[in-house]
Amino acid sequence: METIIPVKLPENSYKIVIKPGSLSVIGDYLTPLKLGQKILLVSNPEIFNFYGETVVNSLTQNGFEVFIHLIPAGEQFKTLSQIEKVYDSALTHRLERSSTLLALGGGVIGDMTGFAAATWLRGLNFIQVPTSLLAMVDASVGGKTGVNHPLGKNLIGAFYQPKLVLIDPEVLTTLPEREFRAGMAEVIKYGVIWDDNLFAQLEQCDRLSSFSDLTPELLQTILTRSCQAKADVVGQDEKESGLRAILNYGHTIGHAVESLTGYSLVNHGEAVAIGMEVAGAIAVKLNLWNCMDAKKQNQLIVKTGLPTQIPTGVKIEDIINSLSSDKKVKAGKVRFILPTKIGEVLITSEVSNDLIREVLTENSNYSIFC
Amino acid sequence: METIIPVKLPENSYKIVIKPGSLSVIGDYLTPLKLGQKILLVSNPEIFNFYGETVVNSLTQNGFEVFIHLIPAGEQFKTLSQIEKVYDSALTHRLERSSTLLALGGGVIGDMTGFAAATWLRGLNFIQVPTSLLAMVDASVGGKTGVNHPLGKNLIGAFYQPKLVLIDPEVLTTLPEREFRAGMAEVIKYGVIWDDNLFAQLEQCDRLSSFSDLTPELLQTILTRSCQAKADVVGQDEKESGLRAILNYGHTIGHAVESLTGYSLVNHGEAVAIGMEVAGAIAVKLNLWNCMDAKKQNQLIVKTGLPTQIPTGVKIEDIINSLSSDKKVKAGKVRFILPTKIGEVLITSEVSNDLIREVLTENSNYSIFC
Repeated sequence: METIIPVKLPENSYKIVIKPGSLSVIGDYLTPLKLGQKILLVSNPEIFNFYGETVVNSLTQNGFEVFIHLIPAGEQFKTLSQIEKVYDSALTHRLERSSTLLALGGGVIGDMTGFAAATWLRGLNFIQVPTSLLAMVDASVGGKTGVNHPLGKNLIGAFYQPKLVLIDPEVLTTLPEREFRAGMAEVIKYGVIWDDNLFAQLEQCDRLSSFSDLTPELLQTILTRSCQAKADVVGQDEKESGLRAILNYGHTIGHAVESLTGYSLVNHGEAVAIGMEVAGAIAVKLNLWNCMDAKKQNQLIVKTGLPTQIPTGVKIEDIINSLSSDKKVKAGKVRFILPTKIGEVLITSEVSNDLIREVLTENSNYSIFC
Repeated sequence: METIIPVKLPENSYKIVIKPGSLSVIGDYLTPLKLGQKILLVSNPEIFNFYGETVVNSLTQNGFEVFIHLIPAGEQFKTLSQIEKVYDSALTHRLERSSTLLALGGGVIGDMTGFAAATWLRGLNFIQVPTSLLAMVDASVGGKTGVNHPLGKNLIGAFYQPKLVLIDPEVLTTLPEREFRAGMAEVIKYGVIWDDNLFAQLEQCDRLSSFSDLTPELLQTILTRSCQAKADVVGQDEKESGLRAILNYGHTIGHAVESLTGYSLVNHGEAVAIGMEVAGAIAVKLNLWNCMDAKKQNQLIVKTGLPTQIPTGVKIEDIINSLSSDKKVKAGKVRFILPTKIGEVLITSEVSNDLIREVLTENSNYSIFC
């Protein structure tokens, strides 16, 4: 099984390769890209401990000169000062413009490595090797890179495309189950916003809450359809001037929930799951979406073991206030992505705070509105 | 007199407008660009003192909401920590993706503002209003943005194009003469590498060493032909993968001289003048360039009041060593841009250290090699 998904952009097109076992032959995938000899591999200690040797060996066998830069694991290290340490490594090892930064890790490592690649010598080659499901289906595709500002997530960043995204599904064996489920939230998202066939395949599964619930074939399908959905959307709107906003389905409320729980109680995928639940309910209230489809979405989220309720202790008014500081606010208006049927959404700034309050109060109580 | 030069790029094309007095009506130039309402004007205290009120008034009259961020003058403030302060201003004033960062100043302000614009919210609108001759003919055109790393100039940066470059030649009245001459070094460069007609016009001038030596018409011509040359080159090679390297004529030795004199004794334009002198001599030694043309270049540099000699105290071996750490080194090889006739250069990695030593020893002594 090998799937190749081309990401077609006005400039800097690239490929996503999905292939079990590809990590041990990664050098073979990089050689045709005509990169310079030097590669700075950026990872965190835990991931590097699992897969570093495999990657380094293959790269070295293919003639690359590999240097290692490790960043401590965790969102709290997604800072500009950690990027400065990557710069220092790049300088120490005398990286040139033809050199490569390779991200081996989850979304944090990918975003940071991409930003360092975008901004060192005004741009080095960049390779994404995502090791979490969330990074495979979302963060590694589409060129969003960046770090957090003390007052907000991902406020500092750049659009910068990788030369290759290499996905080895077998690395998911070492991914904690909670993180697997977080990635599944984005998979469900692609089903709702873009791909009704993917949604239907997920519905047919009895269980979706851990890696071991999936056959290799189903996993390959999930990865392929999710990456294809993202590639389709990004290919039409690289810089998020229009269509790309639909990828933020579930993220409007999701970001607020993450922020208000200090990015610790609820992880990104869990927050997106809650956000999709809320957005779905808003769409139903506005008569945009069939109530039965909203229930189907709810059933998928529940089957995956993801939350659907706003965490206790988070106040509705705090969520309303938090929405107005979101990065994607335009002319002061909060935008919502709302489903119109399975596989289709619309973008709207016309959701009143009163309606948001009403839905948050009833949160997921389908007996009220179906 | 108004000249409009289109800079044609695969994405993000824009215009350079050169017009005396345009600063006082800058709002009229920005309105058609369909920017968001908020503009963060970035400048330094001295420049802002001269022109801030004029710019702010025009922008406000055109309905923009203007915020001010001042950075202390000087290369020593071209740092990532100063960029973080720009980020803080952007956050305080709740800039959105549709908002604009406007650089009012010389090359340092332009490079820094562009980098902040490239990296806040993954890219805001960016407007260049250069106030030095060097920034007008070089730094403001072409999308190179960035800051210095403690161990090297402009190592941190991104390619990011402005939406407009607005040049008001009248602001050069307040430019110190030494800085005017520094800008003229880049003008002479365009004559040598690209535009023999510009070179010929410069030759016809009796004096070129201060703003008052030029008629408004000649200044308009110099600005137009220089910006056109840069736009031509950048339009063919935005990301410096080939042709664009010719803009570094004089910069290979120039960077070494700047670095070895601590970026204080010799300014950028002076270093480039010395570098062009050395590159010209190397080209003559290699029988690539006519000795008489090299002399003509020398005469132009002298007439402008720019230096031609390596500053006393700078050791030849230190220059040789410094060359190998240049940002544009490729596969460890130093590249030189060498003239073949007035208006044409070639790029070569085939200049031996022995030849560099020889030319540096004879530095500008034309009686030896002509």
